[in-house]
Amino acid sequence: MTERPTTQPGLDQALRAAARAAIVLAGSEPATRADWLRAIADELDAHRDELVVLAQEETHLPRPRLEGEVGRTTFQLRLTADAVVEGSWLEVAIDHADPNWPTGPRPDLRRVLRPLGPVLVVAASNFPFAFSVAGGDTASALGSGCPVLLKLHPGHPKLSDRTGELVLEALTKAGAPTGTFAMISSEADAQAALKDSRIKAGAFTGSIRGGRALFDIAAGRPDPVPFYGELGSVNPVFVLPSALRRQSETLSGFVSSYTLGVGQFCTKPGVLFAPHSQSVLDELAGLVKAVAPAPPLNDRIQQGFTGRLAELRELWQPVSEGTQTADGLSPSLFATTIDDALDDLDGLFEEAFGPASVVVSYEDPAELVAVARRLPGQLTATIHGDEDDPIAPELLGVLAGHAGRVIWNGWPTGVSVTWAMQHGGGWPATTASVHTSVGPTALRRFVTPISYQDVPEALLPAAVRDDNPLGIWQRIDGKLTPPN
Amino acid sequence: MTERPTTQPGLDQALRAAARAAIVLAGSEPATRADWLRAIADELDAHRDELVVLAQEETHLPRPRLEGEVGRTTFQLRLTADAVVEGSWLEVAIDHADPNWPTGPRPDLRRVLRPLGPVLVVAASNFPFAFSVAGGDTASALGSGCPVLLKLHPGHPKLSDRTGELVLEALTKAGAPTGTFAMISSEADAQAALKDSRIKAGAFTGSIRGGRALFDIAAGRPDPVPFYGELGSVNPVFVLPSALRRQSETLSGFVSSYTLGVGQFCTKPGVLFAPHSQSVLDELAGLVKAVAPAPPLNDRIQQGFTGRLAELRELWQPVSEGTQTADGLSPSLFATTIDDALDDLDGLFEEAFGPASVVVSYEDPAELVAVARRLPGQLTATIHGDEDDPIAPELLGVLAGHAGRVIWNGWPTGVSVTWAMQHGGGWPATTASVHTSVGPTALRRFVTPISYQDVPEALLPAAVRDDNPLGIWQRIDGKLTPPN
Repeated sequence: MTERPTTQPGLDQALRAAARAAIVLAGSEPATRADWLRAIADELDAHRDELVVLAQEETHLPRPRLEGEVGRTTFQLRLTADAVVEGSWLEVAIDHADPNWPTGPRPDLRRVLRPLGPVLVVAASNFPFAFSVAGGDTASALGSGCPVLLKLHPGHPKLSDRTGELVLEALTKAGAPTGTFAMISSEADAQAALKDSRIKAGAFTGSIRGGRALFDIAAGRPDPVPFYGELGSVNPVFVLPSALRRQSETLSGFVSSYTLGVGQFCTKPGVLFAPHSQSVLDELAGLVKAVAPAPPLNDRIQQGFTGRLAELRELWQPVSEGTQTADGLSPSLFATTIDDALDDLDGLFEEAFGPASVVVSYEDPAELVAVARRLPGQLTATIHGDEDDPIAPELLGVLAGHAGRVIWNGWPTGVSVTWAMQHGGGWPATTASVHTSVGPTALRRFVTPISYQDVPEALLPAAVRDDNPLGIWQRIDGKLTPPN
Repeated sequence: MTERPTTQPGLDQALRAAARAAIVLAGSEPATRADWLRAIADELDAHRDELVVLAQEETHLPRPRLEGEVGRTTFQLRLTADAVVEGSWLEVAIDHADPNWPTGPRPDLRRVLRPLGPVLVVAASNFPFAFSVAGGDTASALGSGCPVLLKLHPGHPKLSDRTGELVLEALTKAGAPTGTFAMISSEADAQAALKDSRIKAGAFTGSIRGGRALFDIAAGRPDPVPFYGELGSVNPVFVLPSALRRQSETLSGFVSSYTLGVGQFCTKPGVLFAPHSQSVLDELAGLVKAVAPAPPLNDRIQQGFTGRLAELRELWQPVSEGTQTADGLSPSLFATTIDDALDDLDGLFEEAFGPASVVVSYEDPAELVAVARRLPGQLTATIHGDEDDPIAPELLGVLAGHAGRVIWNGWPTGVSVTWAMQHGGGWPATTASVHTSVGPTALRRFVTPISYQDVPEALLPAAVRDDNPLGIWQRIDGKLTPPN
């Protein structure tokens, strides 16, 4: 009989163990941590069917979507592992001593990024794998050498617990020290953890209200720590007149995107700017009515969405009103004019978490630039049109100043896990706009630079040694240099 | 008759102009901004003698030090310019479309860092060139494409004004748009600016109290922004028993370092741990008494230091008490034991800004590790000893977790401006431990990633185009690739 490891040892014990593990992790090799991430990925893949069944019960998301999400999550762990080993993210710089350096004799200086220490990761509800227990935040924290204290999401407690068990088993078998990973389940414990000086950073995906509360705790500490929250975004889409040549394709793409996953994606397009046209509204109404109802993640989400829907009804004209049946929610669409929208941009740019969106009609494309200039920070902004559309360059330029990702003739849902992805943006899209939460560069959130000055070779960490035992990129005397 | 440009146009006008300039700067080429930085450097070099005279009057620092600091400042501008052009800091990643990507068909994605927008830079008093009007924060903000609103330090108003004029003249002649640089002088204006939504980040070098107040404003905004404050550090030095073989050299190095610049360096070693030895204390007393008095920067600094000195007298035993004469301050040194220090680590690790330091005697080197584990965040920590000293590896490892720079057999004062420098650390050394304020990597503070998805080549910024017109490093399909 084998005993299962305890995923929730209690907050105090978890923090003590994490602080001890942090010392071991700080001295661990990247390749070792990459093995841990790959072991977690293997364990999840081996238990995919079991996990998907649990996820279906708790989230009501369809099986193929959940199977795909497990694959995305294990790929994310493996891509992070590859990046950890590749090592350019460590930003190693070696400046050899130089008696003639212009600011005075330069000592031998070697810079590398080191892990911050234990990280509190607060899981999200809408991606029960990719942004939950073993999701991107966990992958990048562990990969960078930080123990993870994971606050599980109450929307999928059984799945979280089982995933946590598998993570812990994988880490233990792979030789990671006790305290590398643990879970907590209460909001009070999460807040207490974030106040505790042993926690050195926080990561979160969720609502603006929840994220702001945690951000305020992290920033209000006697010793403030970074808090990486991904909060809210309406992901506006700007349909230029030239895109109406492909009207049906554009409008059906939009409806598919905003109703995908029952509208519960952080990249859901919540506002569509389109040329004033009754034909557009009529076609949209038909498309929206044809979308089958689907169950939301849970009752709490449904209640929140119902409340937001009532506000949308107050604010804008209905194009198609969704219903709520035993099969779930069918989508809603509202419409307004750009003049009315400009009178209440706060109302327009507030997220509705569920299958609802707003179409804003405009007469003059120049008005789009005026609106774009007033956009709060967004995860994404999208343009549909032809590249020789006269407004395109200016609009693209303005949107690039307000969104983490600018999309051309595509849709914001579907966040590719790859080096060039940016999943972030200014407030309220995130609390920390200079970083991303998706892709290998997410590692940069949990590390801090350290310089070693004149430290003997024997005492230097491997990453900054002249013989480069890790085989990583090093900036040597100012010049970025590949490994041999 | 030529009219001098207005360096202080008033807060509202400055913010409006900065917001407009930000749009132009966001679209500017790195080489253009590099030219601006070099133009500023040339202008300062051309007026070095005039500036040094002003600085001498206002800061009482000796002429050679100030001349050297101008050189350091213009070098910093030029090194930043070189880094801006080299372009690897833009972290360009190009992932071409891939229908077989494991997380689903991958669109064409291109990531680059873009400037955040107008930055409030709050100047310091102790480096009237290198950390003031045209200092490192200004260089990295302008270099990354952010307009600068500079709060000048009241300790050197004439120098600030003249430096600001030269910066503005250089920028204007070099073709930078109006609003790229402006100054404000009141604390109230600085706070108002930091609260204004047009300011997208803050940078500061100064006291813990002042920095905390501004950090709280930045974090407390409805739309929080990053605030990079470099605040306080005691920069402890750990003298291992093996270093006493070079006792005189070690102790005289320490006294030189902590009294350098009248002890007004942020990297001043404020605590020295040394083996218990009357001979050490006697030798230190002699060395300290031999240091000539020198005037502090200004009356405010002198008052603050006098107050802190009174606290140090309450806390610890005097080894040598400094005096205050017409020639300025002579240094003070205090002593205590590690047992007493452990009873009041808060008192020990509070910075004294001026020529004072504390020697802490220990019996057992293992006690050093215990103290190091309780160190608050530091800009630097230093070890003196032989590399085969048995405690060295563990002590170095612990210190690397608490300080931005770890120094071996050297001294923390003298911050080389180079790629491998880290000038930062955990709270209270800085408000933002994951970044540096010195060296080319300081650019990373004022930029945020953006991904372009399926955007036509003609509409893409030069940095992420396949033909690589900027000739910069690009990570292409995951592989870091040098320019041709």
